[in-house]
Amino acid sequence: MATADISKSSPPLKDELDIVIPTIRNLDFLEMWRPFFQPYHLIIVQDGDPSKVIKVPEGFDYELYNRNDINKILGPKSSCISFKDSACRCFGYMVSKKKYIFTIDDDCFVAKDPTGKEINALEQHIKNLLTPSTPFFFNTLYDPYREGADFVRGYPFSLREGAPTAVSHGLWLNIPDYDAPTQLVKPRERNTRFVDAVMTIPKGTLFPMCGMNLAFNRELIGPAMYFGLMGDGQPIGRYDDMWAGWCTKVICDHLGLGIKTGLPYIWHSKASNPFVNLKKEYKGIYWQEELIPFFQSATLSKDATTVQKCYLELSKQVKAKLGKVDDYFNKLADAMVTWVEAWDELNPSAGGSTGVTNGSAK
Amino acid sequence: MATADISKSSPPLKDELDIVIPTIRNLDFLEMWRPFFQPYHLIIVQDGDPSKVIKVPEGFDYELYNRNDINKILGPKSSCISFKDSACRCFGYMVSKKKYIFTIDDDCFVAKDPTGKEINALEQHIKNLLTPSTPFFFNTLYDPYREGADFVRGYPFSLREGAPTAVSHGLWLNIPDYDAPTQLVKPRERNTRFVDAVMTIPKGTLFPMCGMNLAFNRELIGPAMYFGLMGDGQPIGRYDDMWAGWCTKVICDHLGLGIKTGLPYIWHSKASNPFVNLKKEYKGIYWQEELIPFFQSATLSKDATTVQKCYLELSKQVKAKLGKVDDYFNKLADAMVTWVEAWDELNPSAGGSTGVTNGSAK
Repeated sequence: MATADISKSSPPLKDELDIVIPTIRNLDFLEMWRPFFQPYHLIIVQDGDPSKVIKVPEGFDYELYNRNDINKILGPKSSCISFKDSACRCFGYMVSKKKYIFTIDDDCFVAKDPTGKEINALEQHIKNLLTPSTPFFFNTLYDPYREGADFVRGYPFSLREGAPTAVSHGLWLNIPDYDAPTQLVKPRERNTRFVDAVMTIPKGTLFPMCGMNLAFNRELIGPAMYFGLMGDGQPIGRYDDMWAGWCTKVICDHLGLGIKTGLPYIWHSKASNPFVNLKKEYKGIYWQEELIPFFQSATLSKDATTVQKCYLELSKQVKAKLGKVDDYFNKLADAMVTWVEAWDELNPSAGGSTGVTNGSAK
Repeated sequence: MATADISKSSPPLKDELDIVIPTIRNLDFLEMWRPFFQPYHLIIVQDGDPSKVIKVPEGFDYELYNRNDINKILGPKSSCISFKDSACRCFGYMVSKKKYIFTIDDDCFVAKDPTGKEINALEQHIKNLLTPSTPFFFNTLYDPYREGADFVRGYPFSLREGAPTAVSHGLWLNIPDYDAPTQLVKPRERNTRFVDAVMTIPKGTLFPMCGMNLAFNRELIGPAMYFGLMGDGQPIGRYDDMWAGWCTKVICDHLGLGIKTGLPYIWHSKASNPFVNLKKEYKGIYWQEELIPFFQSATLSKDATTVQKCYLELSKQVKAKLGKVDDYFNKLADAMVTWVEAWDELNPSAGGSTGVTNGSAK
């Protein structure tokens, strides 16, 4: 299979991709990424005190939004954007006008592959997004669209066209993305294993989507990438990306879209404080036991032919089935609706009918 | 998570594992495997002319069965064992008295990892089989039971015990396991990518199981490992392992058992003739388009609490739903019943009630 044509000389998708970075500090980490990110436009979502000035290294093309900007742009609908939590990053997805988003945390640095070469994470994400996924059948040699790979014997020929890829989920060397209990139990564990693979998460299977190193096709799945209500005034944190991932996976499965995970790696520099994390996570840890069966059994109707329609259906199910777990989920379900309304306001041309038709509803 | 305790000094599972090898030639390939295989018992299933003498290198402990032996042991039931096709290997699974089986083709050699170290494939299969699987939720850092790995943030705690592992599916460096059309189109493609990962195939997802480098827990799944009717007198070949894999996956999903794929690699030395393969495969290539939807939608009843019961239910469904695709599937469905009867005859203590209870029927 031919892989996507990504020329090394001109940065791929330069005018079609925004890099979204949530932060509370100066963006010195961009220095290390300069060779890879400088050609792209950045959307910086400043969390916390809006009067603080965030320094961005010279030469980067960016727009920056602080809380005052968010409030001004969204008005009352700004209530759906989290404060004092990196979940605020999803505001950046909403104001972008590009087809693709890459989002990265400001404690993530350039990783090296086993030969010592610096990994251009963005380039790999773009390769992942521009080649199809294989959600309907498992290929044992991993991504069949990669150079030197293909579908193995026994892979049905009718499925070799694959499905459009909506999400590319990258991984982390050094500090793994562990929850607080695992951090507490294994304070010294580091991820040193470079697994040279990209694979599709099969249809019907949920996964923990981490927002640290993530890219997606905004046109295909953008309105599902809501990072929920976390942080200031909310009972939980650190489940923003997980929530987005579960919603996104259910909707991708319904719409016949693919999600890939694996390469690229970034170097995650510093473990967050496990005690602080435990406080943020502890309700999530037990709520999750109800959320997973909920998402595993969630089904969407044949009428749900756009991401927005899917998302609104899901919000109703959240209220109906999770509202009794905790009143928080009633608030969250309302925020999901507000989010979609705000999305459609800022993205009028795509409003409610992003053009994705329901190719293979469950 | 602690990994299984596999001491390097004494060969793991030495008295609990048989190595099954189907062959038509002298087993010189065992010389290269001597350091790893010599402590184990071999079951050699000689295919083709039974008067031919197969030479086994000195020092190996083995039993050998040719077609005359199979006919004598199984009587009329020997009709379920293929002739002139490596599918005959499943006779070895049946006559084994051990808990675990490792099966390997005689054109598979010891591969090297990226550091140049020879890979003890059997040891890795044993690690895979002795640690649980995670079929109910995807772990983005791959097998969480491997050293240096764990479950990532967002992985439900209730699922971290995992499921018993029934099958370990290993991969191939050098000649990839391609079908005839892909072999014809890419005659020079070699698999050089060493992917340092083991992962569980999620529940509900089918995969192409290759019999070249495969291990399984005979007590958990043995009676489902029937390699079908291939070769002499049959309309197809090269779908023996695929058939076994699809049946096995459906039954593992029903019984709450796991299947892992990935490490270990073997070195696959020689591509089979693509023209001969095309002749064997061509009916399978289009039948497969009906087989996959059949297996994807197959469900087993709550009464199917043992592998045998599951397998007999599946054979009825094969007859009912695939018999109309081709009369071959009526013959195959009958052979599936014969296989289970023969299995129970040779394995009376486990007969029909292998002790696996239906922990998580769909």
